[in-house]
Amino acid sequence: MSVNIRDSESFVVGVDFGTLSGRALVVRVRDGAELGTAVHEYRHGVMDAALASSGEPLPADWALQDPEDYRDVLRQAVPAAVAAAGVDPERIIGIGTDFTACTVLPAVADGTPLCQLPELVKRPHAYPKLWKHHASQPQADRINELAHARGEPWIARYGGKISAEWEFAKALQLLEEDPDTYQRADRWIEAADWIIWQLTGRETRNACTAGYKGIFQDGRYPSRDFLQALNPAFAEFATTKLSRPVSPLGGRAGSLTAQAAGWTGLPAGIAVAVGNVDAHVTAPAANAIAPGQMVAIMGTSTCHVMNGIALTDVPGMCGVVDGGIVAGSYGYEAGQSGVGDIFTWFADHLAPPSYHDEARRRGVTLHDLLSAEAAAQQPGAHGLLALDWLNGNRSVLVDHHLSGAIIGLTLATRPPDIYRALLEATAFGTRVIIESFESAGLPVTELVIAGGLLRNALLMQIYADVTRRSLSFIGSEQGPALGSALHAAVAAGAYPDVPAAASVMGSKRDAAVVPDPASAIIYDQLYADYVLLHDYFGRGANEVMHRLRALRDRARDRAIRDRAQRDRARRDGALVPEREEAAAWQSTS
Amino acid sequence: MSVNIRDSESFVVGVDFGTLSGRALVVRVRDGAELGTAVHEYRHGVMDAALASSGEPLPADWALQDPEDYRDVLRQAVPAAVAAAGVDPERIIGIGTDFTACTVLPAVADGTPLCQLPELVKRPHAYPKLWKHHASQPQADRINELAHARGEPWIARYGGKISAEWEFAKALQLLEEDPDTYQRADRWIEAADWIIWQLTGRETRNACTAGYKGIFQDGRYPSRDFLQALNPAFAEFATTKLSRPVSPLGGRAGSLTAQAAGWTGLPAGIAVAVGNVDAHVTAPAANAIAPGQMVAIMGTSTCHVMNGIALTDVPGMCGVVDGGIVAGSYGYEAGQSGVGDIFTWFADHLAPPSYHDEARRRGVTLHDLLSAEAAAQQPGAHGLLALDWLNGNRSVLVDHHLSGAIIGLTLATRPPDIYRALLEATAFGTRVIIESFESAGLPVTELVIAGGLLRNALLMQIYADVTRRSLSFIGSEQGPALGSALHAAVAAGAYPDVPAAASVMGSKRDAAVVPDPASAIIYDQLYADYVLLHDYFGRGANEVMHRLRALRDRARDRAIRDRAQRDRARRDGALVPEREEAAAWQSTS
Repeated sequence: MSVNIRDSESFVVGVDFGTLSGRALVVRVRDGAELGTAVHEYRHGVMDAALASSGEPLPADWALQDPEDYRDVLRQAVPAAVAAAGVDPERIIGIGTDFTACTVLPAVADGTPLCQLPELVKRPHAYPKLWKHHASQPQADRINELAHARGEPWIARYGGKISAEWEFAKALQLLEEDPDTYQRADRWIEAADWIIWQLTGRETRNACTAGYKGIFQDGRYPSRDFLQALNPAFAEFATTKLSRPVSPLGGRAGSLTAQAAGWTGLPAGIAVAVGNVDAHVTAPAANAIAPGQMVAIMGTSTCHVMNGIALTDVPGMCGVVDGGIVAGSYGYEAGQSGVGDIFTWFADHLAPPSYHDEARRRGVTLHDLLSAEAAAQQPGAHGLLALDWLNGNRSVLVDHHLSGAIIGLTLATRPPDIYRALLEATAFGTRVIIESFESAGLPVTELVIAGGLLRNALLMQIYADVTRRSLSFIGSEQGPALGSALHAAVAAGAYPDVPAAASVMGSKRDAAVVPDPASAIIYDQLYADYVLLHDYFGRGANEVMHRLRALRDRARDRAIRDRAQRDRARRDGALVPEREEAAAWQSTS
Repeated sequence: MSVNIRDSESFVVGVDFGTLSGRALVVRVRDGAELGTAVHEYRHGVMDAALASSGEPLPADWALQDPEDYRDVLRQAVPAAVAAAGVDPERIIGIGTDFTACTVLPAVADGTPLCQLPELVKRPHAYPKLWKHHASQPQADRINELAHARGEPWIARYGGKISAEWEFAKALQLLEEDPDTYQRADRWIEAADWIIWQLTGRETRNACTAGYKGIFQDGRYPSRDFLQALNPAFAEFATTKLSRPVSPLGGRAGSLTAQAAGWTGLPAGIAVAVGNVDAHVTAPAANAIAPGQMVAIMGTSTCHVMNGIALTDVPGMCGVVDGGIVAGSYGYEAGQSGVGDIFTWFADHLAPPSYHDEARRRGVTLHDLLSAEAAAQQPGAHGLLALDWLNGNRSVLVDHHLSGAIIGLTLATRPPDIYRALLEATAFGTRVIIESFESAGLPVTELVIAGGLLRNALLMQIYADVTRRSLSFIGSEQGPALGSALHAAVAAGAYPDVPAAASVMGSKRDAAVVPDPASAIIYDQLYADYVLLHDYFGRGANEVMHRLRALRDRARDRAIRDRAQRDRARRDGALVPEREEAAAWQSTS
């Protein structure tokens, strides 16, 4: 580190819990200088094919995690970051965290995750459901239908639709698919709050996830009547498993316990900030929390957050929450459920050997090579148009059962063509979101990019051209971790509030990319066609994507059932001849 | 060869001129036994990116060939096949040929192709335009519009649409883009007839291409008035460059010249059959020329041919021609412009290294591996639906500016999923064609498969399941060459007519694949969605594919223009700075 550290200086630690790993960052309080960082990869990663403890295959659209991986981040990444920073741990005055959301788990009253009870270790429903667990869509559909039928006032705060990713849909799935495990859960808690419980020994609930993911609006959760109408056994869900006081962002959740001090090597008793969410905590890290500054955090998925002075309903937004980003403002959120994930999917599974070889030869990544070849094209030259819904659509359609599409393929289509079309599709998706906000009376005055994808120059140029906007870039490469550290500084009392800390510790670079007018003209034409397909496939004119998914799920369920039958038969010592298996499949199809 | 040859036996040679190579086959007259074969790959292949003689880049959708490659097949493949057969050349009594169509070239009055005149060797328009040259679409659109406006009676014989692939559209493009070369052309002749001219020294025109590709109906070409209305300079096109007597299939075009005997090593003076087309000649090779027997010749593309007793209009068919397949019947033709080409495109350009490695490890082709993994899935399990228009749509939409689409992509989609969806899409395309014929009152009583793709067991099962029909397979692996040989036997007088020869020399295997009822139920559902998308993208509800192609073509033309400008500037010694180039591009976009 080239930073000169004074004797009197103090530091904070921010910890960002991502989808596949957790990162710790040591930050200087007086100016936000980043002094050292370390990453710990989750040992279990994302469990979306099988449960690690049993090998049991998981159905389509499931995504679980193991909470011990979160504790390991505290044990591994925090001490490593402090060591990398070369600062005396005694000078560290606070720790803040942020998490993916809605990542949510069932726990008993002392905070122990259900999946760590020996008798439940093989129950998939006892594990944390990661944000991208999408198997609760039927429950989400029923929540939405009932909310509209009953005229629930809160539904408009979520763009008219609750997501299958959120607390209520996931909890209702747990209740209905595994009622025993549901009964064992004293708590249904965001991982964002669970980790604070681990650090402080105190259960808290943060305003951000309570609002965006927990339907906590105007001081209350959905009513007992509403929940009872969903399912009689669900009536007391909010009052028993959810309801605890909600703490404002930037507040102090408690003090670091001796146990957590042992894990992290940090001093016991230092301030622990209220839990937070990766995207939302990034806005102050970019010093972009004024109304109209939309921060797009672009990684595997993209989250858009923006403060507003007034409360407005934006159709298809993820939500608006009082104090959801910064206490005192209405925080608006929207999102795209697949962005970098889509590019990686293409590079991993559909790039031929010649591209791998060439990337190796040039000493660059496959993404670099595909981007370079795609960048050599003029807009429109590939003749393609894609829908970026390979992981569903979060905003503005709020439908995780939509899927991706590519139109315009010819025998002359090559990998960089498709790669570029996928980049463009996500840019069109962002433009849809911006236009929805503006149509609802919330002008987007600045688009600020954060997250790892801002390093892709082609992607950034496309976003500027498609949105016809100059892009600002966050100053930090570790936006969420910096944002968490900034909240720790506020929780420790080093700054009076988050805006004051953001103006000193956060930073952005204005007009880092400017639009090319000639490209923007072509993209306007492509965008018009994107919107046409977006509405055709996404708003009910042709439900083919839902039918295809239903067919797929039936085929997969059948395959899982058949496998289980065969396994049973094998266990029972009966060998099922191949012919009978085929016949069995035909009769159940 | 294990065939026992008697002293008195006679033989014929069939030569099949394909897209990338020509094949010769030596066949025994008395029973159709195939005794020896040889292939010659065209040295110039398909020129679709640049003209070989000049390196000049070709615009989008062009596809040219070099006629010397055709002569080389006579020089190389024919003698090699005779040698492989181990028969005395003196026992060979005739030669027959078939060609891709419409592959058409301009020539002077003695048959010399214009591209072999030294002064025209660098003119793209002087070369044969291969069947898949699709750059004449604007001309085809005008022909169709005018034909309907004038109520031309012949347009209904082509399903209501003339293809951009055919003689008139390609000739009109030549006239309008390169009038000098057009003027030099004494003849506009199908390669199918040009090769006969090379063999016999006599110009003939065969009933098949004249009818299907040359709009020759009821004994005449489109009228002078019609052609004049298209373009005044086109008024005499048919009378001067096209019109010659039309010969029936199975007839004798003439006798092998001494020059051609020198090329081939066959005896001068033997019978040469009237020219023919690869698909049409295959029907008698499969002994499937009765009304209702639809023969699908499945290779890079698929051609469907079927005889009928009555004359009926089928919307979207390629054409119906009196004597177009067998003299005395009405020959119906339909087609899919991309089939095997699409699978190869995917395997060549979108299969990742792990699949290449695994195929190598198992010692199988990439197609074998992808097919095996796709075959392990149940129908519907991939959640995908594709439109098989990567090379345009020949039947029933007759629109080469349509393009392919894939719907239902998710982050879990893998290469075998897409591969299977592409196989299925072509099967759905075939079902659309069959249903069009049946709706028009032409029952399809048997589906007979010919061509290389019948070796893909998964593909065949999918076709059976999707069409709910048992499939018959042609007996020969060299259907077109056998069909040509069979026509040579008729031309030489060994059989009274083609049906008589077909019943002896042709063969098929009935019910080679039977449909699986459980799969057929699922495919009925997928087919309903295929038809929905087919009509949405293909019948004008959403012209996005045309808009994407227009954007693509403009971007490519701009790139070609810019390159030419740069080249000119470089030749003139003026170095254009990069910045000015960019500015120039913006101002013209």
